[in-house]
Amino acid sequence: MIKKVLIANRGEIAVRIIRACRDLHIKSVAIYTKPDEHCLHVKIASEAYCIGNEAIKGYLDAQKIVQIAKECKADAIHPGYGFLSENYEFAKLVEDSGLIFIGPKAEVIKKMGNKNIARELMQKNGIPIVPGTKALNNCSIEEIKEKALKIGYPVILKASGGGGGRGIKEVWSEEKLEESLEHCKKEAKAYFNNDEVFMEKLIENPRHIEFQILADNYGNIIHLCERDCSIQRRHQKIIEIAPSPYLSEHLRKIMGVSAIAAAKAAGYTNAGTVEFLLDDYNRFYFMEMNTRIQVEHAVSEEITGVDLVVRQIRYAAGEILDLEQSDIKPYGFAIEARINAENVWNNFSPTPGLISAYYPALGPSVRVDSHIYKDYVIPPFYDSLIAKLIVKATSYDLAVNKLERALEEFSIEGVKTIIPFLLAIAKSREFRKGFFDTSYVENNMQKLLEKIKNDEKTNKDESIAAISAALNKHLKGE
Amino acid sequence: MIKKVLIANRGEIAVRIIRACRDLHIKSVAIYTKPDEHCLHVKIASEAYCIGNEAIKGYLDAQKIVQIAKECKADAIHPGYGFLSENYEFAKLVEDSGLIFIGPKAEVIKKMGNKNIARELMQKNGIPIVPGTKALNNCSIEEIKEKALKIGYPVILKASGGGGGRGIKEVWSEEKLEESLEHCKKEAKAYFNNDEVFMEKLIENPRHIEFQILADNYGNIIHLCERDCSIQRRHQKIIEIAPSPYLSEHLRKIMGVSAIAAAKAAGYTNAGTVEFLLDDYNRFYFMEMNTRIQVEHAVSEEITGVDLVVRQIRYAAGEILDLEQSDIKPYGFAIEARINAENVWNNFSPTPGLISAYYPALGPSVRVDSHIYKDYVIPPFYDSLIAKLIVKATSYDLAVNKLERALEEFSIEGVKTIIPFLLAIAKSREFRKGFFDTSYVENNMQKLLEKIKNDEKTNKDESIAAISAALNKHLKGE
Repeated sequence: MIKKVLIANRGEIAVRIIRACRDLHIKSVAIYTKPDEHCLHVKIASEAYCIGNEAIKGYLDAQKIVQIAKECKADAIHPGYGFLSENYEFAKLVEDSGLIFIGPKAEVIKKMGNKNIARELMQKNGIPIVPGTKALNNCSIEEIKEKALKIGYPVILKASGGGGGRGIKEVWSEEKLEESLEHCKKEAKAYFNNDEVFMEKLIENPRHIEFQILADNYGNIIHLCERDCSIQRRHQKIIEIAPSPYLSEHLRKIMGVSAIAAAKAAGYTNAGTVEFLLDDYNRFYFMEMNTRIQVEHAVSEEITGVDLVVRQIRYAAGEILDLEQSDIKPYGFAIEARINAENVWNNFSPTPGLISAYYPALGPSVRVDSHIYKDYVIPPFYDSLIAKLIVKATSYDLAVNKLERALEEFSIEGVKTIIPFLLAIAKSREFRKGFFDTSYVENNMQKLLEKIKNDEKTNKDESIAAISAALNKHLKGE
Repeated sequence: MIKKVLIANRGEIAVRIIRACRDLHIKSVAIYTKPDEHCLHVKIASEAYCIGNEAIKGYLDAQKIVQIAKECKADAIHPGYGFLSENYEFAKLVEDSGLIFIGPKAEVIKKMGNKNIARELMQKNGIPIVPGTKALNNCSIEEIKEKALKIGYPVILKASGGGGGRGIKEVWSEEKLEESLEHCKKEAKAYFNNDEVFMEKLIENPRHIEFQILADNYGNIIHLCERDCSIQRRHQKIIEIAPSPYLSEHLRKIMGVSAIAAAKAAGYTNAGTVEFLLDDYNRFYFMEMNTRIQVEHAVSEEITGVDLVVRQIRYAAGEILDLEQSDIKPYGFAIEARINAENVWNNFSPTPGLISAYYPALGPSVRVDSHIYKDYVIPPFYDSLIAKLIVKATSYDLAVNKLERALEEFSIEGVKTIIPFLLAIAKSREFRKGFFDTSYVENNMQKLLEKIKNDEKTNKDESIAAISAALNKHLKGE
């Protein structure tokens, strides 16, 4: 039995995990750095400890985090996503300290964290992979050119230690190969401290389809259907849908069993995600396995009724998986929109600052996971995600309507957010029809920006937050 | 096809109905009286019309409402609950004007609105009713005394035209009978303009179990399981649960088919509710049928995935019921807590005023239906309900945990609310175990109030709204 969990994270995911602890009547321990002292996770946890003045460093200080967990007698550590969540050395340190790491075993994180090793493992186990090479670092440029010709251009160079859309480089012709290789190695070294790179065929305009996996410590594994995360901007997901409005029943079935086979091959435990690319010819390819809870986990929760964070804690504590694959009967469609504090008109640059008025969307079919509130100041140091809006409905069409309604109601004053951009996507014909792949946002950027401008002109509605702010001024006689 | 709906209501239910219209891409028309000009339903509707300066009168002005609906070319009128929702003359006026009344036919409202006629109809159709009399107004006091002796004390006197807990009077002994009769007649005349009263056996400490009915215009009727509304204060529901944590499968089955039989006997169409009392001996009794959407409809939506307001609109428009009873597979438990702006320490008196800070509960499994926002001023003229908090979970136990979590996060500054009282109930052993009937709140009032005091002493947590307000003051250098 886990009685107290330290959450080694901040922001919305820390709040999400603390809520799960409260739901389970388990004590929660927040950690925070000085700039985060007013962050909601600090306020709603049972206990909170400051781990330093520097904005980010504390969240990466594995030793100190484990020390605090031991001192406050936590039984377990939940790493959330980002920060140390996929750092196998941290997981190992937690394990060696006699604490429970809420996630898979350190060795599994290590294995799946190396994209090249993961590829080989999948290949051995019959999971389709993208045509490509092993690590290239010991090959001459001539050998690499030969390999590229054999695969066929365009190809993509990838850092073995990469992830999150970083450390990848597309190469469309031989003359760019050498330069791109050097660039990729450099970025890999800088971001992941590992300059090992390998080459794959570039799958043009694929769909991004991922399966949510749930496993106990005894080899029982199920999946909770897929999420379609094709709506991306620069390899960063911005809208996710469960199930995919595009996938056929047949593909769902064979990709689902492949996801479970992939997780079994990895010796996977706890919650995780198997990411696939899907091309125009119904071919699917293992991309990577994310060995942690994901930002977009909520859409899977909404269609299956399974609370993933609660399950993570329960299975980490040693409970047996009490769900069979046949128990998972997805209901309707759920869509998540990531509300980032970014300025659409300044190349999506982050917009830290004071939230002067705030009205989250509410009402039927609406869920908001967030750490912000009125008068909270978004610090400039972290990811720009400030809220996740999740809607659900019986059909995809109705879910899109609900997404529109909720985005129209959701209002934040004081900082610019991408809400108008998300709304433009939600209102597009392509999104409603399910006609999109990972190139959709990039290819339609101009059209989407024009849509925002037109909406601003024709839409006379004030936001609810703006109304609230105006009333406040009026009350004060300003 | 309905293309535009006028909502003849205000507050949270108006907002709820407008959200359903938006979800269906149907235009919505709000009406409001002057004190409500900043109410959320006015802001989020497609159009809004002021219907007078007096706070309440406009919402009861049937002629004017129908006139506005015709002028703005609405196809239908949704009455919400309260106000004109169970006024058959209003429904008739709407029908006669060629508009669609979103609810049952006027004649059905009339029939079920007279408790005495409804009783007789149920008796004829095999639905169990509480032992009692027909209308007593033509009986001598001696005859009435004889009837009471035959039924057995305690008895209850009820206004035929009553509802909502008004116009009823308990009589525990013969010496109080005459006085109570006069009192009840007077109240019936005052509230319902109809002094007809009848007598029933008082069912002591029953459970209040009601079934949600859904029907189209072609005789197809299903139920969406029951709600347990036994947590009441002075006959006003404050917490509702679906399904009941107490009901056996057998009772659920026979009460469910009885509810459908009751609705069929009434010739019912659209959404409605059949209310039963359930005694300690597993005997259940038809109490009344509510011919409108109810405050607590959301808990049924959460366990069945059926959007009741959307369905009301669709079936009023003439669609065929596309659900069979076997399609209704309730999942988990949902609980609604009514957040009233009332002062627990002043006999639950209403607390109108300015909402100076507001943080609705958010996150997984939480739904908030409300019309309030920061800087909104609660007017003194209406019902004190300002928000409905709905949680859901796979088990009743987990749902109670989530209710606790959400009530702890939910914070409103500026006006007193009953949140601490709701939390005291949620934390009580009786609530968690399902050991409660309609007398629970009254019988445990002292204990609940003491619990609030103790929690206030030991709980050092500041509310999120309070934190937000403090940050705001700090920012302004106050």
